[in-house]
Amino acid sequence: MSTRVLVQQLQSLPDGPVSVSGWVETVRDQKKVQFVILRDETGAVQLVNPATRPIDPATASGAGEEQDAAALALTETISGLSTGTFLTVTGELKHDERVKLGGVEVKVGGLEIAAAALAETPIAADSGLDKRMDWRFLDLRQRRNNLIFRVSTTLEHAMRTWWIERDFIEIHSPKLMASASESSAELFEVPYFEDKTAYLAQSPQFFKQMAQSAGFGKIFEIGDVYRADPSFTSRHATEFTSVDAEISWIDSYDDVARMQEELLAFAIGAVADKHGAEIEELFGVTVVAPTVPFPRIPLAEAHEIVTARGYDIPRTDGDLDPEGERQISAHVKEAFGHDFVFITDYPHEIRAFYHMRDAETGLTKSYDLLYNGVEITTGAQREHRVDILIEQAAQKGLDPEHLEFYFDFFRYGVPPHGGFGMGLARVLMLMLGESSIREVTFLFRGPTRLAP
Amino acid sequence: MSTRVLVQQLQSLPDGPVSVSGWVETVRDQKKVQFVILRDETGAVQLVNPATRPIDPATASGAGEEQDAAALALTETISGLSTGTFLTVTGELKHDERVKLGGVEVKVGGLEIAAAALAETPIAADSGLDKRMDWRFLDLRQRRNNLIFRVSTTLEHAMRTWWIERDFIEIHSPKLMASASESSAELFEVPYFEDKTAYLAQSPQFFKQMAQSAGFGKIFEIGDVYRADPSFTSRHATEFTSVDAEISWIDSYDDVARMQEELLAFAIGAVADKHGAEIEELFGVTVVAPTVPFPRIPLAEAHEIVTARGYDIPRTDGDLDPEGERQISAHVKEAFGHDFVFITDYPHEIRAFYHMRDAETGLTKSYDLLYNGVEITTGAQREHRVDILIEQAAQKGLDPEHLEFYFDFFRYGVPPHGGFGMGLARVLMLMLGESSIREVTFLFRGPTRLAP
Repeated sequence: MSTRVLVQQLQSLPDGPVSVSGWVETVRDQKKVQFVILRDETGAVQLVNPATRPIDPATASGAGEEQDAAALALTETISGLSTGTFLTVTGELKHDERVKLGGVEVKVGGLEIAAAALAETPIAADSGLDKRMDWRFLDLRQRRNNLIFRVSTTLEHAMRTWWIERDFIEIHSPKLMASASESSAELFEVPYFEDKTAYLAQSPQFFKQMAQSAGFGKIFEIGDVYRADPSFTSRHATEFTSVDAEISWIDSYDDVARMQEELLAFAIGAVADKHGAEIEELFGVTVVAPTVPFPRIPLAEAHEIVTARGYDIPRTDGDLDPEGERQISAHVKEAFGHDFVFITDYPHEIRAFYHMRDAETGLTKSYDLLYNGVEITTGAQREHRVDILIEQAAQKGLDPEHLEFYFDFFRYGVPPHGGFGMGLARVLMLMLGESSIREVTFLFRGPTRLAP
Repeated sequence: MSTRVLVQQLQSLPDGPVSVSGWVETVRDQKKVQFVILRDETGAVQLVNPATRPIDPATASGAGEEQDAAALALTETISGLSTGTFLTVTGELKHDERVKLGGVEVKVGGLEIAAAALAETPIAADSGLDKRMDWRFLDLRQRRNNLIFRVSTTLEHAMRTWWIERDFIEIHSPKLMASASESSAELFEVPYFEDKTAYLAQSPQFFKQMAQSAGFGKIFEIGDVYRADPSFTSRHATEFTSVDAEISWIDSYDDVARMQEELLAFAIGAVADKHGAEIEELFGVTVVAPTVPFPRIPLAEAHEIVTARGYDIPRTDGDLDPEGERQISAHVKEAFGHDFVFITDYPHEIRAFYHMRDAETGLTKSYDLLYNGVEITTGAQREHRVDILIEQAAQKGLDPEHLEFYFDFFRYGVPPHGGFGMGLARVLMLMLGESSIREVTFLFRGPTRLAP
């Protein structure tokens, strides 16, 4: 293991013996010379081998010509390499500025195949999304797909680092629950022990609030949640990674919004620093850390702006529809040059029962965060006064019996608190200008997609 | 929000006005003076209020004595405070070395109750574990329980940092699967769309291997997994957080073991640095970064050592039982002064089908890692040669049809690879000397435990 050199290290090494490992991207098997493009997780390098072909007796210049058996075998092995075969090559590194791929090549000395690929690759770079998802492990070998998950790693680590430097506690709340965490629709049921039924968490909502009652103060969680959601849009999945935070002793939902905008500015800045050039090259997108504060627009005002732009939102419940979100985001981009906008003060009719309401207006102390025209977050101050909370649950027609355990979190003391939930894949999709969360999810799950 | 001072900051502040927020731990309501111990996520502080009691007309020295209504009300409010009530106090900070609790106290000026707790607290510090789990949000207010999750946060962040500095990619593999990831026993079934059945992942095993086939090179995942495991031991749960890593181009399982020991040495060292003194105080345990390399003992040799210590392992399958694990760990502690030991070279009969086997001995290229006498990890080099892999699956009586999607990961090229899975709660339990993973899990899930 110690002798392996990563492809990206080759340029900085002197000419001489090296060993590289990776998979075959292409083979160019010319009569006199063979070229293999070998890729690993860090890049691609050209391997070169002067071909030694068996002498055709018909054209041999004379009898008795000796051929190097090892050289013959190596040439034959390279001729037989199929795309995707993983192998280790030992050879001579040579710097040569004529080589387009990084100005280096490796003259093959020995070649050891770890696992040969079947000759027929079931997908091509231009295969449709569904076909590519069938063969996701091959699809992920593409350089741009590999980059997506390195970006995701950097984004998450930057968020966690930001939180941890501010003394947040990371929790792992259970995903097996005795009742719904959000709504009884879109709920996966799991037969549990003793004829009980468990439900898969739709969000860590109740439990991140429990952490406030437990006096944890500031918490975050990055974990998978489940929605038995039959929709097939580019923004929905039945299982997705949710980024959640919750903080105590807030005065308003704006304390949550401020935390989130600073978090995102830091994390997107970290992505820009580490991967900006590569994202530019492979996605044609310039990632820049957003400035804070993000613009804030009350929902009612957003409606006026969208209407003034000539779009009539067909929804009658007062919420924005996807085109409305794009319109208000376009306005914000034009007016403030910003990719993000907090839409605030949603009517309680279209919000969860646990959102705190303004006593006078009835509007919730909550926001949605839009990024490049798409909602990525709902955030809110929570109602922590248990009497009002119970009343709000009843107004929504929820069965209080199933919520008793949750109401208990408020009966034994609780600080004012609030938080947000954010879809990791949506952020990645919008940051990279991708068309679907399926492109940026390691293995997507949807109504008709449970494999591989 | 900006004016709140954390309790731990008080000692470094000068005498003067402050505002602290937290929950009531105790009230000492004396006739002439009232003391409240207020706790927040960082510590506890004594609040003091000179009591102003209503004058008993019978004992009043004369008519016309005026009492301060606000002072009377404040005294009455404090008298009525129940344990657990969350409140904000504004007052005067005063340094006084006679105050045992940190040498400071806050003279109450104003007091605002955020949420009053019910008078009867359903659990006490000495309540049994099951009762405490019923009221976990109250149980977590204990200082030592809060510390557990700060330790967990530090441990995880250190591991992630170690990996990310070495260019590992973080993945989130799906927990909804079309087939079992480990064994068909202990599998939770989930009714899915179109009358399909999904299964909850027992581990990310197949998908972290898929990442190797995808050319990711080095990956990790920290996420929840599910076992429909009816056992009630102190080490098992139906849902738990699994720490997983998988790396390519290994020569042997020992490359995995070396990664894991360095990871743990770094992460435990980070815990010792950040929380060592507090762990010592609250758990009576000294946490020290383990030295590397950890001792390694082949399983057959471990058997001999345990037998020589006078313990006959009753299991007939060749594996260690819990007492055998304690015995071999005691030996390692005595002989090498080490808390960790890798037990290696398990017979294939007691290992998963995907463990690579030594062609001559049939022993698997795998290990278990024991920590303070308990298994926390299984690691292995994986069989990446698909023909052998299929054969080994067949030998275990597994239905190849359900594994075709997994075998495909190997048919289109794959590097040699291996990895480990580690239970986060077990590591925490053993590091802190706790008796059960239930104590170190945010919300435990077991056969009879699905709430809160």
